[in-house]
Amino acid sequence: MRDVAIVGIGQTPVGEHWGASLRELGADAVLAALADAGLSSADALIVGNAFGASFSSQTQLGALIADYANLNPIEAWSVEAADASGGAALRAGYMAVASGLADVVVVVGVEKSTDSIAQTRVMARNVALDADYEAAHGLTQTAQAGLVMRRYLYEYGVELGAFEGFSINAHANAKGNKNAMFQNQIKPGAFARASMVADPVNLFDGAPDADGAAAVVLMSADAARDLGKPAVLIAGSAAATDRLTLHERQDLLYLTAVAESTQKALAQAEVALGDVQVMELHDSYTIMTTLALEAMGFAARGRGWALAANAGEMFRPTGKLPISTFGGLKARGNPVGATGVYQAVEACLQLRCQAGVHQVPQAHTALIQSIGGFGSTVVTHVLRLLD
Amino acid sequence: MRDVAIVGIGQTPVGEHWGASLRELGADAVLAALADAGLSSADALIVGNAFGASFSSQTQLGALIADYANLNPIEAWSVEAADASGGAALRAGYMAVASGLADVVVVVGVEKSTDSIAQTRVMARNVALDADYEAAHGLTQTAQAGLVMRRYLYEYGVELGAFEGFSINAHANAKGNKNAMFQNQIKPGAFARASMVADPVNLFDGAPDADGAAAVVLMSADAARDLGKPAVLIAGSAAATDRLTLHERQDLLYLTAVAESTQKALAQAEVALGDVQVMELHDSYTIMTTLALEAMGFAARGRGWALAANAGEMFRPTGKLPISTFGGLKARGNPVGATGVYQAVEACLQLRCQAGVHQVPQAHTALIQSIGGFGSTVVTHVLRLLD
Repeated sequence: MRDVAIVGIGQTPVGEHWGASLRELGADAVLAALADAGLSSADALIVGNAFGASFSSQTQLGALIADYANLNPIEAWSVEAADASGGAALRAGYMAVASGLADVVVVVGVEKSTDSIAQTRVMARNVALDADYEAAHGLTQTAQAGLVMRRYLYEYGVELGAFEGFSINAHANAKGNKNAMFQNQIKPGAFARASMVADPVNLFDGAPDADGAAAVVLMSADAARDLGKPAVLIAGSAAATDRLTLHERQDLLYLTAVAESTQKALAQAEVALGDVQVMELHDSYTIMTTLALEAMGFAARGRGWALAANAGEMFRPTGKLPISTFGGLKARGNPVGATGVYQAVEACLQLRCQAGVHQVPQAHTALIQSIGGFGSTVVTHVLRLLD
Repeated sequence: MRDVAIVGIGQTPVGEHWGASLRELGADAVLAALADAGLSSADALIVGNAFGASFSSQTQLGALIADYANLNPIEAWSVEAADASGGAALRAGYMAVASGLADVVVVVGVEKSTDSIAQTRVMARNVALDADYEAAHGLTQTAQAGLVMRRYLYEYGVELGAFEGFSINAHANAKGNKNAMFQNQIKPGAFARASMVADPVNLFDGAPDADGAAAVVLMSADAARDLGKPAVLIAGSAAATDRLTLHERQDLLYLTAVAESTQKALAQAEVALGDVQVMELHDSYTIMTTLALEAMGFAARGRGWALAANAGEMFRPTGKLPISTFGGLKARGNPVGATGVYQAVEACLQLRCQAGVHQVPQAHTALIQSIGGFGSTVVTHVLRLLD
């Protein structure tokens, strides 16, 4: 198996792109990543997208974006795993290059959600839930988070305000990121006044849907060295699944697929959790952040919430455990199927020492994690600067 | 790179499964393929599906089917490339095993279209077209085929009835295939009486949408030999794209991605077109069959239609060029995202000499081709019995 490296990165701003469609966002990121790598063509294009069909009535994004980026007759297809689509697409691209079946692969994550009116958007997003046993009965992704969060509060006797620090820190980290959807700051105490979305999940608990695209260019590590550009090694890569429906899980409060894929990715990279200097986590809801930190091993079960209290110090780029250093899903925004690739782009900026005000000093090893459903599909990658 | 072999196959009947949903069809095929391989678990599940979101409001099929087949925490995600989704999923699975990142991979293609009423189904299927420049203006997949067929008739001075032989032969080949949607026969002359769907495409020109699932189990060739079961080598694999929209193509009547992916797959397998003894082509419309045969090199441009006259002899299992030996999309039926995997299953039955009445004598090398859009995404595989 060939080692694989990321040799180019590109991203569009995250936000409401009323003037740009899937093809335009996707092609912009693809061409930016190729330009960053100093390349003008590739062997394959792999697209991460979650809701093209339900948000935009558009599938076959591989051929569409390849066409718009003038890359035909390049191989192209899409990868879907709900909110983990971007992470899964990165893994598919990794396999393509590792196998030797392709030498240069562009992985682009793209999502376009703001053309849907809000109610339609909720319904469109619901395709990621179990259609027969969850969505048909009115459950939504945010309601799922509400159910789990309510149980967590009850089980561990935690107060609502305890989670505030995660969101405050995400917004603080987004400051200065021109690609972030939100650069405004959340003031302490704001949680208490935020309107409920799906009690106990309030407006500040959840990440916003958004439009955006991010892309990376992959090559073999050997070819990357010859290219003479700063390159980032994919040192570990792993995916895992859990039961799709919440009601069939043995334990509502433990994300088994997070544990599984984290352990596997770290093992492949031959590093321990403590060796990771910067992380981009799937902070779609504060309860997701909490449970992911617990399943990864950063906190004991029932104690993940306590990390929020120190998030403002601990999770800052200069802190002990920098998380969501460009704002994460919460403040950079969550262009669903693109999010996993944004994480890769941001981790590369860190490892290449190009993160500006977001720079984590001496960041040698990064971990990124993309989560679909409420932990039903989890893809984890460990990255480090290529020697 | 590791050589990869298919060590297990499974399929459900193709048809209208009113009592089975995506998860049930998918899991049935997965478990059948694992049982055929004598295995009870795998490292990864890759799902080929085209229209889960638009037909069934269901995505995240990787986790869903993994769950229903009791395979959690297995890695799982979906691959989409419109009607070529099955072929693209097979290629993704091939990459996973070839790279060494997974040892046992199940690839399942699954589609469920009959729960939609006909008008909704047409709209749902339209997500594979260009949403902004084609679908929004009323174009459908069948209308696309109509436009191309009309141009073909005009350009080469061909009569409508000339295509009849392709469909008659597909139904003849389906006879005895208990998994086929149609085992009835089309009588010569029936074309002239068939109702038009999108003039000049009539009811007998096109393949029927259907429900179904097919699966294959992949392992490294070395591991496959140790397993001691009849195994089929993936000798060649290639994908290519063309411009998505018809109106932007230089040449309406030449499927460049078919030519590109066929040549690449044959080159990898180190065989010539003449060495292929059995083919499963994407006969979604008689005009698609015609143009694919031309782009592959089986007929000169403008002469593909002439092969239809002898299809009843030439394309039969005992003929010189056996095509669609189990009925093809036309008569076996077209469960869209599953079709590419059905082709793999059928080719394996041929190469394993288990094709019964469909058996092609001395079939050593097979070619299967999965086409998305009107030739916008094409995936070709060359298979042969593992030594």
